[in-house]
Amino acid sequence: MSMTLQQLADRIGATIRSADADAAQRTVTACSSLEAAGPDDVAFLANVKYTSQVQTTRAAAVIVAPDITAESQTLLVADDPYFAFRNAMVELHGFRNHPAPSPDGKPVSPLAVVSPTAKVGHGTKVHPFAVISDHAVVGENCVIYPGVFVGPRARVGNDCQLYPNVVVYDDCVLGNRVTLHSGCVIGQDGFGYATHGEPGQAPLHHKIPQAGNAVIEDDVEMGAGCTIDRATMGSTVIGVGTKFSDLIAIGHGTKVGPHNLYVAQVGLAGSVTTGAYVVMGGQAGVAGHLKIGNQVKVAAKSGIMHEIPDKTDVGGQPALPLNEGKRLLLSSFKVPDLLKQVKQMQRDIDKLKAQLETGADASSD
Amino acid sequence: MSMTLQQLADRIGATIRSADADAAQRTVTACSSLEAAGPDDVAFLANVKYTSQVQTTRAAAVIVAPDITAESQTLLVADDPYFAFRNAMVELHGFRNHPAPSPDGKPVSPLAVVSPTAKVGHGTKVHPFAVISDHAVVGENCVIYPGVFVGPRARVGNDCQLYPNVVVYDDCVLGNRVTLHSGCVIGQDGFGYATHGEPGQAPLHHKIPQAGNAVIEDDVEMGAGCTIDRATMGSTVIGVGTKFSDLIAIGHGTKVGPHNLYVAQVGLAGSVTTGAYVVMGGQAGVAGHLKIGNQVKVAAKSGIMHEIPDKTDVGGQPALPLNEGKRLLLSSFKVPDLLKQVKQMQRDIDKLKAQLETGADASSD
Amino acid sequence: MSMTLQQLADRIGATIRSADADAAQRTVTACSSLEAAGPDDVAFLANVKYTSQVQTTRAAAVIVAPDITAESQTLLVADDPYFAFRNAMVELHGFRNHPAPSPDGKPVSPLAVVSPTAKVGHGTKVHPFAVISDHAVVGENCVIYPGVFVGPRARVGNDCQLYPNVVVYDDCVLGNRVTLHSGCVIGQDGFGYATHGEPGQAPLHHKIPQAGNAVIEDDVEMGAGCTIDRATMGSTVIGVGTKFSDLIAIGHGTKVGPHNLYVAQVGLAGSVTTGAYVVMGGQAGVAGHLKIGNQVKVAAKSGIMHEIPDKTDVGGQPALPLNEGKRLLLSSFKVPDLLKQVKQMQRDIDKLKAQLETGADASSD
Repeated sequence: MSMTLQQLADRIGATIRSADADAAQRTVTACSSLEAAGPDDVAFLANVKYTSQVQTTRAAAVIVAPDITAESQTLLVADDPYFAFRNAMVELHGFRNHPAPSPDGKPVSPLAVVSPTAKVGHGTKVHPFAVISDHAVVGENCVIYPGVFVGPRARVGNDCQLYPNVVVYDDCVLGNRVTLHSGCVIGQDGFGYATHGEPGQAPLHHKIPQAGNAVIEDDVEMGAGCTIDRATMGSTVIGVGTKFSDLIAIGHGTKVGPHNLYVAQVGLAGSVTTGAYVVMGGQAGVAGHLKIGNQVKVAAKSGIMHEIPDKTDVGGQPALPLNEGKRLLLSSFKVPDLLKQVKQMQRDIDKLKAQLETGADASSD
Repeated sequence: MSMTLQQLADRIGATIRSADADAAQRTVTACSSLEAAGPDDVAFLANVKYTSQVQTTRAAAVIVAPDITAESQTLLVADDPYFAFRNAMVELHGFRNHPAPSPDGKPVSPLAVVSPTAKVGHGTKVHPFAVISDHAVVGENCVIYPGVFVGPRARVGNDCQLYPNVVVYDDCVLGNRVTLHSGCVIGQDGFGYATHGEPGQAPLHHKIPQAGNAVIEDDVEMGAGCTIDRATMGSTVIGVGTKFSDLIAIGHGTKVGPHNLYVAQVGLAGSVTTGAYVVMGGQAGVAGHLKIGNQVKVAAKSGIMHEIPDKTDVGGQPALPLNEGKRLLLSSFKVPDLLKQVKQMQRDIDKLKAQLETGADASSD
Repeated sequence: MSMTLQQLADRIGATIRSADADAAQRTVTACSSLEAAGPDDVAFLANVKYTSQVQTTRAAAVIVAPDITAESQTLLVADDPYFAFRNAMVELHGFRNHPAPSPDGKPVSPLAVVSPTAKVGHGTKVHPFAVISDHAVVGENCVIYPGVFVGPRARVGNDCQLYPNVVVYDDCVLGNRVTLHSGCVIGQDGFGYATHGEPGQAPLHHKIPQAGNAVIEDDVEMGAGCTIDRATMGSTVIGVGTKFSDLIAIGHGTKVGPHNLYVAQVGLAGSVTTGAYVVMGGQAGVAGHLKIGNQVKVAAKSGIMHEIPDKTDVGGQPALPLNEGKRLLLSSFKVPDLLKQVKQMQRDIDKLKAQLETGADASSD
């Protein structure tokens, strides 16, 4: 996409600040990093520690917060510069154009299998080798890529994107505008077994039917390879507006709240509940049956073993409030020196005791 | 499914205990949690800390252990209440009915590819877009979902369920009643390279042929997205009755013992062996070439660096016997105060030394 | 494959050392472990602690380093015995023979979908239910297994192997001799959202278009289920010769250097760069925007929070230089005893203080 800087500024709600009177009429065509930008690119100052690069970048303009100044550079000043940058990405690059499922222009490929009892909404593209099972419902304007399986009685809302090889098990439900990247699996059986041995026999793990489902609410996006267990009874839920990165595992019966953000390889065991706006760093884990409050932030690799109240930042294994965890970590760094110090102190004490004893002896002489 | 409480009690081996003479003839239709149960539901007391809910639930009856009493509530008393609950789930909900592969009622979809040299047993369903390769053998009464790949010369036993997009590489072997959820991969090449550089050249990682296979024994179930490396020589083995949750990675040549239970995201490196009835918490990891004994329990997120003897509970990174680990953890919490205390003690000692010196000086006067 | 020991020795650059004059003419057919080897097998001494097994193995010969001796056993002596063993595996077992995509012998299955605008090179096999999208290019002598999706405008080099259900998103690039095991996903959208709320409204996570791609350089191999995010702008890169095990997640914009080796379940956040010959143990993680130097070795389960200079071995959470980490770990083991010792010392000090006071009182009398 190509437009003038003035057009871009208007669309992203930014103000041009420039020593160059013609700056507003310059044409821009793409977003780029400060380092890689060419003269037709718009760049973005993500971190104040790179402010010096604002002067040296070849970019046509740099999106910045109001407090940033740079005399020789054209600036696009925005109150929320990261959101303005995002909007510039949308204006100049836009989102993926999905390919046509069939050379004949029909929305449903003749090489897909759509059950006669399934419903597929208007404008939905179904690619070759996708399967829409009996009594499944797919809404309008969805994209069902090759190799996708939508199980019996599953329901998919409008404007959903299911990338290649996504699997939605029987009876699971996806809201509107749900995006699942390749390899995501929704609603496989939860990890439920009753270990039982008849008298005199070795115990076996007896499978418990997983009779519930998984519900993915509106505006959820998941990266590649996420796996969401169905519930034993009731539903596993991923709340509205929540975004997952890749390879995340969610146990059965867990209810992830609205607008959560989870980095890759996070794992939540079963029957966990999380509040709104919870953020989890990569590879963090939560034990079963715990309640995580609203706006909790969990550091990468944390292991949560206890309930976490609202608005608490936690980290470590086991996870502690971040200040406490840092204090323990810093104090642990001092232990080697502490051991040496205590050894010397012990020698001093022994000496003092000996001296006092001698003194006592001397005075008793 | 619908039946009287008496019928259910008989089938799950429980005894009705009720103040209501008609309780045995009440109809029940489903299992539910204590909280969500309606008047036709059977609930289950999973944890004694919820005993008070037994009085308040609307459920028709609650499955409990013999020591639980609740005057106003109909109870289904069972020696192993969790197993009785599991059996109630089986009676009232049952297991998944697998869809038909083809509208014409034939068990093998004409849209699947079955090699002329492959064998597919009686009663086995093969869905569209599945591939059964040359000289592969699939037993009786299996379900092969869409997108499944059974590689050349692979063997699948009877009554197996391979959910959409499962992949079984060439020459791998599945026993009877093996269930693999979507996205599981069995027998990809193990992680084997010989790093070697000719004199004066940068070293390269030279791939070692992975000439072994992976063997999944009877009654194994795996959640979504598990990956089991094939062995360099011989077999990687997942033992009889073992159950995996999701996204578990098993290295080449590793032998997982019988009846193990692994929570999601566990990783075992290569050439590990585990005994019988080993339990691993989520995100636990085991380094290569280690032997884990029988009935070992590994806490979530543990990092096992050493051999673990039979019947040992371990936790932490590096994993230690659980008592020892807890002791170290608790003692680590005391370090910040210890640092303060030692600082004060140092001052005291210095003062004592000064006093004694003065005293000595004084007496030498 | 079958050959004489002399033929094998010549091909792998080893020297026969044997008390048996006929040893060189013995036939060998396979590689095996020292323990499992039969009389036609060649074994390999992987670890000096198993040297005693060289005497007892039934193998026809054992590949060893020059400093190993064993009177009663035929040895194949090689300067780099692991590389010699790897070469013996190649000679005696070789690499996988890929199946034919179609019984009619044609390289492209009529059950695959290849866009009329895509290019597929000579000798490339395309299996049933694979999709090669519009304007995609696949080089020569590749193997595209069932269920593989090659997205619009994606480019795949020569001699690549894409195992079942691999997905390559639009515009991504694979070099030559790239091997991706089942379930790998290349180029799904990176985890990029701008969280923004209009005044008086709850904030939402607004998706940032991920306009970049992912580039997998020559000679990269990945195990099953790895997920490589595409970049927001520019490219995510996996460097030449790098090898991944299973279930590895790489964030957007990250540049993995050449010849890295990552064990299963490693996760790198976005905008990380790694040098050459970096080794990461299983389940290690790296926070975003960090620079990892050349030849850095990262212990399993480490959590890297800071830049790591060249040739540094690190471990722990947070990751520290290995010596320092070990020192802290060992010192932490001493804390419980330290607590007891300090308690006793405190009593001694209090006593000494009391004694001195009494003494002072006495002398002031």
